[in-house]
Parts: sequence; structure tokens; C-alpha cells
Amino acid sequence: MDFEQRLNENARLVTKQLGQHLMPGQHFGPPRTLADAMQHAVMSGGKRLRPFLMIEAARMFGRAPGRTIDAACALELIHCYSLVHDDLPAMDDDDLRRGKPTVHKAYDEATAILAGDALQSLAFEILAHPGCHANPTVRAQLVLELATASGWAGMAGGQMMDLEEEGKGGKTRLAVISRIHTMKTGKLIEFACVAGGHMAEVKPEEIDMLRSFGQLLGLMYQAADDILDTTASSDDMGKTAGKDEASGKATVVARMGLDKAKSYVATLEEEALKSLSPFGERAEYLIAATRFVAAQGR
Amino acid sequence: MDFEQRLNENARLVTKQLGQHLMPGQHFGPPRTLADAMQHAVMSGGKRLRPFLMIEAARMFGRAPGRTIDAACALELIHCYSLVHDDLPAMDDDDLRRGKPTVHKAYDEATAILAGDALQSLAFEILAHPGCHANPTVRAQLVLELATASGWAGMAGGQMMDLEEEGKGGKTRLAVISRIHTMKTGKLIEFACVAGGHMAEVKPEEIDMLRSFGQLLGLMYQAADDILDTTASSDDMGKTAGKDEASGKATVVARMGLDKAKSYVATLEEEALKSLSPFGERAEYLIAATRFVAAQGR
Repeated sequence: MDFEQRLNENARLVTKQLGQHLMPGQHFGPPRTLADAMQHAVMSGGKRLRPFLMIEAARMFGRAPGRTIDAACALELIHCYSLVHDDLPAMDDDDLRRGKPTVHKAYDEATAILAGDALQSLAFEILAHPGCHANPTVRAQLVLELATASGWAGMAGGQMMDLEEEGKGGKTRLAVISRIHTMKTGKLIEFACVAGGHMAEVKPEEIDMLRSFGQLLGLMYQAADDILDTTASSDDMGKTAGKDEASGKATVVARMGLDKAKSYVATLEEEALKSLSPFGERAEYLIAATRFVAAQGR
Repeated sequence: MDFEQRLNENARLVTKQLGQHLMPGQHFGPPRTLADAMQHAVMSGGKRLRPFLMIEAARMFGRAPGRTIDAACALELIHCYSLVHDDLPAMDDDDLRRGKPTVHKAYDEATAILAGDALQSLAFEILAHPGCHANPTVRAQLVLELATASGWAGMAGGQMMDLEEEGKGGKTRLAVISRIHTMKTGKLIEFACVAGGHMAEVKPEEIDMLRSFGQLLGLMYQAADDILDTTASSDDMGKTAGKDEASGKATVVARMGLDKAKSYVATLEEEALKSLSPFGERAEYLIAATRFVAAQGR
């Protein structure tokens, strides 16, 4: 099966399972508007790249996708909650996401704040549930690592720094940009890879290797995204293109120009592929994912 | 030791430990402003009633406070995050909390949204950490129950319904008010009691008894708070008094008038005390906490 087929097949599985988790009928109580807003945030497509990485990292060690899918959903919910909050007027102020109105546009700001909050809670609910993994030590470890990746020293902290650097444009040093990228985007991608290993209960050395790969891929992902924002149209992206430059975001393109940013992505691609070499052919789909992400930054 | 002394002693312990968890030095990376805003949200006093309930429920079964404190901090962080988000202009729009400017007033809205988000993550990070409890099954169970209590069918869902009923004042039926109170306030208080039992690894029947007590106490807590909002001054409360009526909130006072609301609290108090009777004298401090909460609604 080629990469795109595999990506789509996983995305279909993940989206279906997300739909199950977001059925308010399974739970007593969530008010209708809140459940609708959460569905709006999650069920509007997306490549489901983070779940793909987790599923394929686990599959590399023999754990079937159906047995990784709940943890993959939890990760995607954290990603989706962050998009809902990042899009708010007080943050990046975006009206469009994946070609649809953002949650605060389709509903209102209060609903968007609460939908994001509840998506974060739901992620940890799913991860801690016995259905996610039979071994409670694995479940607790996954919660610990996802919470750390999402929090003040991870995704939320990275978004804070990103906002603080806004308006400085090309003046932000590359070390700071890398730190923002690592925290804002990299930590969740790193978690995707590491969690796949935890789900398959692999050795600590293998976790370390997955972590190195995830860190490089995460850095590359955000750099490629910076490039895409300058080269793609809004239609291509399903969100407003060219916003980074307009708001003076600290991006690799603003710092080093388009050509050097492209070589930076190429270097990260090479390093990420190298970090996969110990896994040999088993890493086939992680290799393809690396190339796929890098291609967006060309 | 009398109740107030015990409450203050526990609050001191909990506040000290919260300070430890909120020391950015322990972690690499959180941006300074975000860490400051999180500290502002958490370190500004409060009775720490939820941690008290958890600590005393566990102590009733022989588990020392020092061995419940991390889980108690995690719960308090969830409570604090919800206050930060509830105070936002798009929600309850409050400028004052515990006599100090709310987070979005002291910082800005983006920082307040992110501080709330990161406090939620930090709660689950602490709860899932081996330092919280040696048994991973207990840790995973605590995460599962706290996430459920916080999410769309719990606290966040209750806040959503509360906003939806705003402006209807006394027209909201008591069944709906009870459901809002149970979700918005009750679920975390129920968790406090149940989690104390889980920390002490008590029998399922004992968990059930703690749950019944927590549910009654939670309902009573919010009803007493509704009363307090109409009877206390802003200075007494450390937040703007009389706001419920001004914004047409669905409160027990708006629905049934002050006198009937007071009898409602008295009935809940009686039921809550009854639910503690199987524990006998061991429940001394939970009994005192029940009386303390009820006293606010007199």
C-alpha cells in the first residue's frame, strides 16, 4: 500500500473512532451545543498526521492499529483543542480552519473556550480508560507524557512564546524560534512517536530512538508549515495563508528567507531519516511520513 | 483540633505544595509570563476546600495528608483553571477574584486562556506521576475520574448550561438548576471525596458511600453559594457580589426565593450528614466541613 493510501486509511479509522468518542449518547449529560461545537472542532477533516505517526510507530513493533486507536484519538483531541483556542480573537484571531468557520465563528467565544477545555479533558479521559491499554502503568505513563507535552513547558508554553514574539518578525533569533517550534508543535509530534512505542511496550532504548525521530520530525514539521504559509494559497491550506508575515510571526522564513528555510528543512529531513535507520525496513511508513512532511517545505 | 484550625492547616500544606509544583525552575521551558499568570491564578488564597475534603476522606481511612497532597493539588489546579476561564469577558466577565484582579485583567486574555489550559494539563501531569501514588491503577483511575468530572458531562458542561440559562432568571426549572449545580460544582466535590477513598484503596462499598456524600455536599455547596451571592458584600466574598441576580443567572434563590432556598440547603445538609453516619466518629472533619458549607447558606 502506498503512503497516501495508508494515511487515508488510518485517517478514516481515526475519524470514525473520534466520532464514537464524541457521541454524547454514550454519556449522560453534555449539553447539546457544547457537544456540537466539539464535533465541529474535531470532525472537520484534517490529515490526522499525529494519530498516523502513533499508529505506525506501534505497528512497527507488531501492535495492530485497532489497539492503538484510542490513544491516537486522545492525541488528536489535544491537537484539535489547541486549534480551537489558538483561533480565538484574543490569540491568532482566525475565521477559517480547514475551509470551515472556526468554532468561535460558528458558535461564540464562550462556547469555543469551553469546547477546547472539554476536548482536553476528554483526551485524558480516553487515555486513562482501561479500554485504551490493558496495562495501567502504560496508561499512567501516556497521561503523564501527553500532559507534559501539552502544558506550560510544551504546547501551551510554545503558543505563549509565539504570541510574545509576534510583531518582531525576522528579529527573533533562530534558537528562540527552534524553542517555540519544539514546544508549540514538536512536543505533540514527539509524543505521537514515543506513545506508539509505549503502546507496544518496547524497550527503553527503542523509546529513546523514537523520541529522537519525533523531535526532528516535529522541528521539521513547523519549519515546513512556515514555508507553506508563504507559498500556498488560502484555498490550498483551508485557512488564511500569508498570515504569519502579516502578523510579524517569528518564523524560519522571516528569520532566514525562503531559500535558507528550505535547506533547513532538507537538513532536518536527512537527520530524521538517519534517526530511523536502526529500525530498518520496518520504518517504511515513518520514512514516507518524513518525506511527506518535508515535501510541504519545498 | 477544631475544624477551622484543621482547614487552615491543610490549606497551608496544600498551598505550599502548589507553590512547589508551580516553580518553573523544576521544569525546563515554561515562558516566564505564563508561569507568573498560573501562579497568580493559584497562589492567591482560597479556602482549598476541595483539597481538604480529599485529604480528610483519605485520612479517615488511615492515609496521611502528606501522601494525598499531590492528588489534592491536582484537583485544586482544575478548580483554579476553571475560575480563570469562567472570569473571561466572553464568559462571566469578572474583574475581581479573591480580592485581586482576575488573570485576564492582571495579564491579558490570551495569557489567561493559555494559563487555564496549562493548569489543566499540569493537573493531569501531577496525577499521573508516580509520586502521586505508588499504584498505577490508582493513578489511572484518578485521571479517568477527574477528567470525566471536569469535561463535557461535568464542570465544563455545567458552565455551558449555566451560560445558556443566563437571563432566564427564575424561569429555569429546579431540575435544570440541580443538573447545572451537579455538573458545574458537584462533580469536582464528588471527585474530592471519592479520590480520597481511591488514594486509601478502600473497598468499592466505601467508594459508593463517599460518592453519595460528595454528591449531596456538592449540590449543597452551590445552593449555599447562590444564597451567599445575595446576602454577602463584595468585600466579604472577595469577588463581585449580587452578580447572579444582575445577570439573571439560574440560581436556587431566583427560582424559589431566599427563604425556601435556605430550607433547601438545610435539607441537603441533613441528608449529607446522614450519608456520613456509616463512618461513625471517623467522619468528624467531613461532618464539620458539611456544617461549615451549610453555614454559608444561612
